[in-house]
Amino acid sequence: MSRAPVRPKVAFQGEPGAFSHEAVMQLAGPRARIHPCPRFEDVFVALRDRLVDAAVIPIENTLHGSVHENYDHLLHFDHHITGETNVRIVHNLIAAPGVRFSQLRRVFSHPVALNQCLNFLAANPQLERTPFYDTAGSVRDLQRSGDRHTAALASRLAAEVYGMHVLREGLEDDKQNFTRFLLLGREPATASGESKTSIVFALQNQPGALFRALACFALRDIDLTKIESRPLPGLPWKYRFYLDFLGRAHDERSQRALAHLSEMTTELRVLGSYPRGG
Amino acid sequence: MSRAPVRPKVAFQGEPGAFSHEAVMQLAGPRARIHPCPRFEDVFVALRDRLVDAAVIPIENTLHGSVHENYDHLLHFDHHITGETNVRIVHNLIAAPGVRFSQLRRVFSHPVALNQCLNFLAANPQLERTPFYDTAGSVRDLQRSGDRHTAALASRLAAEVYGMHVLREGLEDDKQNFTRFLLLGREPATASGESKTSIVFALQNQPGALFRALACFALRDIDLTKIESRPLPGLPWKYRFYLDFLGRAHDERSQRALAHLSEMTTELRVLGSYPRGG
Repeated sequence: MSRAPVRPKVAFQGEPGAFSHEAVMQLAGPRARIHPCPRFEDVFVALRDRLVDAAVIPIENTLHGSVHENYDHLLHFDHHITGETNVRIVHNLIAAPGVRFSQLRRVFSHPVALNQCLNFLAANPQLERTPFYDTAGSVRDLQRSGDRHTAALASRLAAEVYGMHVLREGLEDDKQNFTRFLLLGREPATASGESKTSIVFALQNQPGALFRALACFALRDIDLTKIESRPLPGLPWKYRFYLDFLGRAHDERSQRALAHLSEMTTELRVLGSYPRGG
Repeated sequence: MSRAPVRPKVAFQGEPGAFSHEAVMQLAGPRARIHPCPRFEDVFVALRDRLVDAAVIPIENTLHGSVHENYDHLLHFDHHITGETNVRIVHNLIAAPGVRFSQLRRVFSHPVALNQCLNFLAANPQLERTPFYDTAGSVRDLQRSGDRHTAALASRLAAEVYGMHVLREGLEDDKQNFTRFLLLGREPATASGESKTSIVFALQNQPGALFRALACFALRDIDLTKIESRPLPGLPWKYRFYLDFLGRAHDERSQRALAHLSEMTTELRVLGSYPRGG
């Protein structure tokens, strides 16, 4: 692995101030330079084409589940997972500096964010709800328009990025809303300390197939932290599994488990071994 | 089980013409009466409070994964899963009757739908993209405004519901975008024919715990069709599993497997047995 740059350039999907940008700062440090992309696929392409040193993608949300689209991209590109982190999704009411809450007549954000703050919005019917493309983008738009009767719902980081003020914080109805993000690189991580490995594999569906696949790990006392099956529409009896286990892919015990697993899979990819995140 | 009403009233989240409304027609028949709700939780409450005979909820999407929020509601309410179906997510360009494509200057829909039609939008830069709350709601809004320079992206059903015309069909970039919906009732289904059973359970995390749980099914040749673990933030070593298997919960073999499983779970709920959907 080449030496990590002091100020790595990191791709993510969304606008500056997005929750993915928060994940970039957690994973690559506050001095990382950012490369915002319109689509998830663009993030993977930017890393492949060496426009950036690393990439950050959301992979799982506690309310909405796994981001299957990004698992698909992980399969189709040759990148390596090199880190993980959890970001709690906190929505704040953000307005221009000097604007008072009583001046506000309208609040805009991504419909998903608006729908995650229904208690606050129900208690404040004077605020007309307006959907927008994304959370951080609504703060950027507010900065550009100079509108003093409108607020946005977005992250604290979005307020900082665009020089706006947080008027109310933590407006989300569900405080158990976390998104798990992965850090990706072109080279495998040189993991030390407690590590996790992510793999994806396919099995022909037959009774007990998954049981036998898990035996490869259980018989070697390897601990699983995530498993998910994905039924593939159009291929009715074919399943793909995402599995995370504790340990590094190159540990002898993991190597034996993966060799055993490969005896029964139609497809098997190690997506990366990386330090276990908080 | 009481006799099913001829024209059951069915709750779902969203506007008339939403993809959930399509699922209602697939699951309860075209003559079903609908009861649209603003939130998923309202759908469960409507069924509990006997405002409706049944409810339909999305549970899994091939791009976006499981809808964990609805799994949570399944746990917290005492409803039974009585059916399932898959709906392919097809986005159409919808405008007022008589409007020609060349007149259009703007297209609006839910940001997720706009983001699923990027190829079409890139090929038609004359169409300004405008985010809206939801797909079917954008068609309803179009009907109300009478705007002849604007189109919506939504289901064919939405065009039918609001008397609008489909100008272009199947604009979604990914044709493998399916959502699996569940039909819920206050009483268990009297399933016949090929059946599926959904359960949810929790295990203390220890190496091999899931392997032993799956042994309950594998040792009895019971076929699994879905498994997913959900790490619970705030409870770092506690996992909940969603599992679907072929068969009815009251079959002798299933009963023995579930009794065996209950020896090792901290929590176990049968969510329902129902005819296997297409």
